[in-house]
Amino acid sequence: MKFLKYLLVFIPISIAAEFMKMDPIWIFIFSSLAIIPLAGLMGEATEEISIYSGPRIGGFLNATFGNATELIISFFALKEGLFDVVKASIAGSVIGNILLVLGASMFFGGLKYKVQKFNKSIVEVSASMLLFAVIGLSIPAIFTHTVNKELLTGKYEWLSIGVALAMFIIYLLGLYFSFYTHKDLYGSEHSDESEPKWSILKSIIILLVCTIVIALESEYLVSSVEPMTESLGLSKFFVGIIIIPIIGNAAEHSTAVLMALKNKMDVAVEIAVGSSLQIILFVAPVLVFVSLLFKPMSIIFNEFEMVALIVSVLIVNRVASDGESNWLEGIQLIAVYVIIAISFLI
Amino acid sequence: MKFLKYLLVFIPISIAAEFMKMDPIWIFIFSSLAIIPLAGLMGEATEEISIYSGPRIGGFLNATFGNATELIISFFALKEGLFDVVKASIAGSVIGNILLVLGASMFFGGLKYKVQKFNKSIVEVSASMLLFAVIGLSIPAIFTHTVNKELLTGKYEWLSIGVALAMFIIYLLGLYFSFYTHKDLYGSEHSDESEPKWSILKSIIILLVCTIVIALESEYLVSSVEPMTESLGLSKFFVGIIIIPIIGNAAEHSTAVLMALKNKMDVAVEIAVGSSLQIILFVAPVLVFVSLLFKPMSIIFNEFEMVALIVSVLIVNRVASDGESNWLEGIQLIAVYVIIAISFLI
Amino acid sequence: MKFLKYLLVFIPISIAAEFMKMDPIWIFIFSSLAIIPLAGLMGEATEEISIYSGPRIGGFLNATFGNATELIISFFALKEGLFDVVKASIAGSVIGNILLVLGASMFFGGLKYKVQKFNKSIVEVSASMLLFAVIGLSIPAIFTHTVNKELLTGKYEWLSIGVALAMFIIYLLGLYFSFYTHKDLYGSEHSDESEPKWSILKSIIILLVCTIVIALESEYLVSSVEPMTESLGLSKFFVGIIIIPIIGNAAEHSTAVLMALKNKMDVAVEIAVGSSLQIILFVAPVLVFVSLLFKPMSIIFNEFEMVALIVSVLIVNRVASDGESNWLEGIQLIAVYVIIAISFLI
Repeated sequence: MKFLKYLLVFIPISIAAEFMKMDPIWIFIFSSLAIIPLAGLMGEATEEISIYSGPRIGGFLNATFGNATELIISFFALKEGLFDVVKASIAGSVIGNILLVLGASMFFGGLKYKVQKFNKSIVEVSASMLLFAVIGLSIPAIFTHTVNKELLTGKYEWLSIGVALAMFIIYLLGLYFSFYTHKDLYGSEHSDESEPKWSILKSIIILLVCTIVIALESEYLVSSVEPMTESLGLSKFFVGIIIIPIIGNAAEHSTAVLMALKNKMDVAVEIAVGSSLQIILFVAPVLVFVSLLFKPMSIIFNEFEMVALIVSVLIVNRVASDGESNWLEGIQLIAVYVIIAISFLI
Repeated sequence: MKFLKYLLVFIPISIAAEFMKMDPIWIFIFSSLAIIPLAGLMGEATEEISIYSGPRIGGFLNATFGNATELIISFFALKEGLFDVVKASIAGSVIGNILLVLGASMFFGGLKYKVQKFNKSIVEVSASMLLFAVIGLSIPAIFTHTVNKELLTGKYEWLSIGVALAMFIIYLLGLYFSFYTHKDLYGSEHSDESEPKWSILKSIIILLVCTIVIALESEYLVSSVEPMTESLGLSKFFVGIIIIPIIGNAAEHSTAVLMALKNKMDVAVEIAVGSSLQIILFVAPVLVFVSLLFKPMSIIFNEFEMVALIVSVLIVNRVASDGESNWLEGIQLIAVYVIIAISFLI
Repeated sequence: MKFLKYLLVFIPISIAAEFMKMDPIWIFIFSSLAIIPLAGLMGEATEEISIYSGPRIGGFLNATFGNATELIISFFALKEGLFDVVKASIAGSVIGNILLVLGASMFFGGLKYKVQKFNKSIVEVSASMLLFAVIGLSIPAIFTHTVNKELLTGKYEWLSIGVALAMFIIYLLGLYFSFYTHKDLYGSEHSDESEPKWSILKSIIILLVCTIVIALESEYLVSSVEPMTESLGLSKFFVGIIIIPIIGNAAEHSTAVLMALKNKMDVAVEIAVGSSLQIILFVAPVLVFVSLLFKPMSIIFNEFEMVALIVSVLIVNRVASDGESNWLEGIQLIAVYVIIAISFLI
């Protein structure tokens, strides 16, 4: 992933473009390219800090700051009132992780190794949590899409906050489960004997600097979404569900594929599934809570987002059930992703 | 469960309240509280009789009279034409059993034992039957909700009776399967060496007395539903899907949790899943047939009930697939139940 | 299946009926009865040729010509513009294979053998591909049924062609997977030491003659559909989803049941699941491509067809997951099929 670091050059380029008031399309592209390596660096810094802090706090830090980039981008989108983009990017992160990342890992890994095995019992815990989470999200969505909407004003918001709260509590309980009561289940994986590359001070400074620069670039990115989509005739929804998740997760994605190429399918699957779980149980509720500062955003997804989420969860439960993968499975996951993307584009 | 018996004091209280023409809310509460211990006693009496009658007839009796309370309450609701309440309480019993009872069993059992195992091959037979039953019910429901309703008058009723008949035949074949052709599969479970507590005569008398008193209390309960929901601003649907199932199943529910606390997860899971299966394949069709005496009730559920049923079936199939449970799984099931309940309340 | 050959007598009868301009009902019945043995003979001839050609090309021939009858019937239906009938018969072939054929195999096999086992790892590859295929088909269907249809004109067709292309590519990759990269997975099954009954020349002549006669009979069949459904008050949709698939697959169906009766459940399951997969991934896309010669047919199914497809896929994934079957499972599959058929009839 070293080549990603060359993209850091887009930080000054994007700032210059903003000052020169270039076409929003260029600002969108430059700030996107700048965010990709920053998100990667931020992930590395978090991992460094976790080595110093010991496995428990480290696991917690990783689980919580792993999606910081998405949180920052979404924060600015919330501030601009781009609720459609925020919710689409939540759903898009989940399908991107499960269909595109897992698919690419299985495909490229499968070209090198005939059959790749992974520990299905850990994946099943996550896949099962993902099933419950998506069911929990679907129920109010189905209700509100069917019931007469006028009956719901007011109550609707409370339902959304209640669901967000339930998700967040399950998230905390899930961390307690994996780091306290059932940590032996995950034991062998998390016993990290890796040496830290950076000092703790350097790691914290990198984390802080990245956060600040990502915030800046996210502001550029978000403010260019509306003029860009208008001039290109793209839907904001497409940008939210396909493009933003790819930007926010590019670093993680390349890690997962690299792990698959090293035949560490366990890690690749855990990145894809674990990351999806964090987005639904942590990022989505936090964004609902944060939105209360501006204008309340509902956690209730639209039909397309629900379909995409349900499809992802069905597939991940199917895939987890045999603990094996091959290139054909990978290409099928990618094909489903491409069909979803084309459907949204049209 | 001994403490439940103190609730028998609500039999005279509810009768007094009815004669004093108290507020329907009180009548609803008192008769509900009176039904809970009666349902428990009735279950015990059925089990006593099964010890005398030998395992085959005993199993049949248990399977058939296990839901007598629901049948009696629903009979009076049918007579009053409260079809919405009857159908909601069928769906509510299934989700109550699978999400609330199974969830509570897994949660409380999981607090005491780290991982609880159960025989997944027996659960899979039931989970699989539940899947087929809910699919069978969904198909005409989906058709009738999509197709122009005017085209359906008349034909609609026959479709409903046909589906009810199909369910009932599958129920009888399922009993034949588990007590004749494949009884060895269930062998070890049903070999009951327990001593009867009561004489056969005493058991029959208790069964009869309970039936009569439950009938009386059900009449009070049902007649208070409409005035109560009006004065409290609750929907009849909420009463049907959440409250009535809890009343009718309280005794079974506490048994399941007690079994989980004794690490007999097999029994707890079988109570929850088996009971759901009986409701769909036996109680629902019988109520359709009984309704022909008054005004025909269709077996076709509305969208919300279908969603609740499908969700329950997906979850039970997921849960059954690994033959293990822990507290986190339990709390997730309960969370889904709470989200459903809140959605219906709003 | 020898008795099927007596049905060949309906070839001259149907030709005579056509010349005598008999009632379309009779023409429909006679040509249907003539097609059944022809489809069987064609299948046999294909298998003979595969013995000569070696396992790889033979497997490919079998996989590709196995559904020739459906292709020929659908070709004439496309030419007549009967898109509803064509699409209904695609969905109907899948549900017929999975619910009726697999159900009948499990039921009749289960009457003779208490529990029948099959190699679940092979079935899981097919069941998993079926899941992906149906998900791939569902996504654009859900989108187009929800989105305002006026927005879609034009684009709609491209989406359909794109999905058809994706399906077809997955089909080719699936053949490459099973005959090249992972052929050992299927190894023991395909090692056919059977002696050819016919010479290669005889086989090719039979194949050609059958193709020509099926084409003739299909033309009779298709041209009688419209007048027949009108005079009987049946929907064309019912003919497409229930009757035509039974005609086209009767020979395969009886083979599957015969195999189950010989306790070769592996073969029976593979016929049902493999055939469904070929229909979705090969027959459906080819028909979309062929339709471009006349008037473009969309690959997007209606709600009922989608429900039937999704139900079938859920069931086959459930059934495949334990690698065992019994008579009760069989009868449940048949019951779901009957409920679907009755719903369509009404």
